[in-house]
Amino acid sequence: MDSITSRQNKIVREAAALSSSGEERRKRREFLCEGARLCQDAARSGVKVLRCFFTEEAQRKYAPYLEQILAVSGASYQVADHVAQLLSSTKHSQGVFCQCSWPETLGGSEKTVSRCVVLENLQDPGNLGTILRTAEALGFRQVYLLGDCCDPLSPKALRASMGAVFRVGLTVEPSREKLCAQLKREGRVLLAAVPDSAALPVTKVDFSQGKWAVFIGNEGSGLTSETIALCHDLLTIPMAGRAESLNASAAATILLWEMARAGGKEGFHG
Amino acid sequence: MDSITSRQNKIVREAAALSSSGEERRKRREFLCEGARLCQDAARSGVKVLRCFFTEEAQRKYAPYLEQILAVSGASYQVADHVAQLLSSTKHSQGVFCQCSWPETLGGSEKTVSRCVVLENLQDPGNLGTILRTAEALGFRQVYLLGDCCDPLSPKALRASMGAVFRVGLTVEPSREKLCAQLKREGRVLLAAVPDSAALPVTKVDFSQGKWAVFIGNEGSGLTSETIALCHDLLTIPMAGRAESLNASAAATILLWEMARAGGKEGFHG
Repeated sequence: MDSITSRQNKIVREAAALSSSGEERRKRREFLCEGARLCQDAARSGVKVLRCFFTEEAQRKYAPYLEQILAVSGASYQVADHVAQLLSSTKHSQGVFCQCSWPETLGGSEKTVSRCVVLENLQDPGNLGTILRTAEALGFRQVYLLGDCCDPLSPKALRASMGAVFRVGLTVEPSREKLCAQLKREGRVLLAAVPDSAALPVTKVDFSQGKWAVFIGNEGSGLTSETIALCHDLLTIPMAGRAESLNASAAATILLWEMARAGGKEGFHG
Repeated sequence: MDSITSRQNKIVREAAALSSSGEERRKRREFLCEGARLCQDAARSGVKVLRCFFTEEAQRKYAPYLEQILAVSGASYQVADHVAQLLSSTKHSQGVFCQCSWPETLGGSEKTVSRCVVLENLQDPGNLGTILRTAEALGFRQVYLLGDCCDPLSPKALRASMGAVFRVGLTVEPSREKLCAQLKREGRVLLAAVPDSAALPVTKVDFSQGKWAVFIGNEGSGLTSETIALCHDLLTIPMAGRAESLNASAAATILLWEMARAGGKEGFHG
């Protein structure tokens, strides 16, 4: 095990760049994971851990976590506290970091599931992470990121997902034509979620039968008209009271919940 | 109309203190509201607007909003851009601010509604604002903040609520004994939301009949055992897949949704 005490160290600077820059992550197909639990989640999920960094204090405090992480890590480095600060994107760092390679499909790909979700152009990493966490809690096993979504492997998205990013099947697909064609070949009904009271209320769909893909759009502007045109039908959340809309994350939670609530083999009653 | 060009101006410093300090807000029973739409929401809601501040640019861009705000504002000040920066808590300020007095009960108090929600010790202002926004969208008219909740009039909570804080009936009550006794006198069943799979599933409750109060706890630690003990029954969200819990905001969204979903006179089918 090596020890790193300088913030100028090349290995540390390479790792820090993955935390701060989405371009670095995409170019090198790597990402940096922070926190004992999250690093353990990554190690357990089968993601390739290239390097592990930890402080002396973390070595004492998070020994059981580090044992599992180091068992699969290509290399390990003890780092000084001020070096850990360079790697950290949190206020109170636990001092545990993993540099990982970015797999083609995160958490496996499950095309046979009856219900999947497509997120288009989602921009906020906190929203994305939270939606993935909710999807996992509600039993979803396949989420697609369509178009120009934010990076699911950014520090903020990873943190908000509580590791769900490593376990929910997550596939990035820039092309709406390609993705919609694939989902249709799988025999799915494609539903576009829109804030339109004339659309099909989500409470009226029987998700327990058949195969479904629900499309959820960007925080500010919703789904693109091009994607809506490729879907079979429009779906909406019925609302009471003032016509004040839900925020993106609350709307996604309700849609995911209604899909799971229906029961069937993947629903929570199944 | 006066004009303020100095950041040392006493009136401006008083207003800025309301934005940055919860203690100032509580002590003076006033708050500062930012943004054309949010200030208009405040003005329309009957909150007392003591002073309005706006930049020259805002006067052009948000004239229709300002007209409504100035009609009810006690005083108005045009401020220089660098003065507006002092008042602002956003990255891209619209340059419109209202200093308001903090009413006893925000948005009115409706004790006759069949469904209400109690939030205990909620700590994150973004969560609180989002829950209020969701509550409004789903037709709720009474929310209680129990114990030591974060400030619903902080800039972050106001922003996340999209003005719902001015329209949903919102009552702050530090004492659980007092609040629970009141809710029981109103003939309500008190349900404590807990992450416990042995509790009553929220999908099995018929919220369309009778009167209800659902208690939702703190982000990290849930409801206090003292509050749980004062409730009639335990309520839970059934989950599929991994026993990974939902985050506080997602759990609250699902609970509110299930209460509204039941229909009846305040539900969305009613």
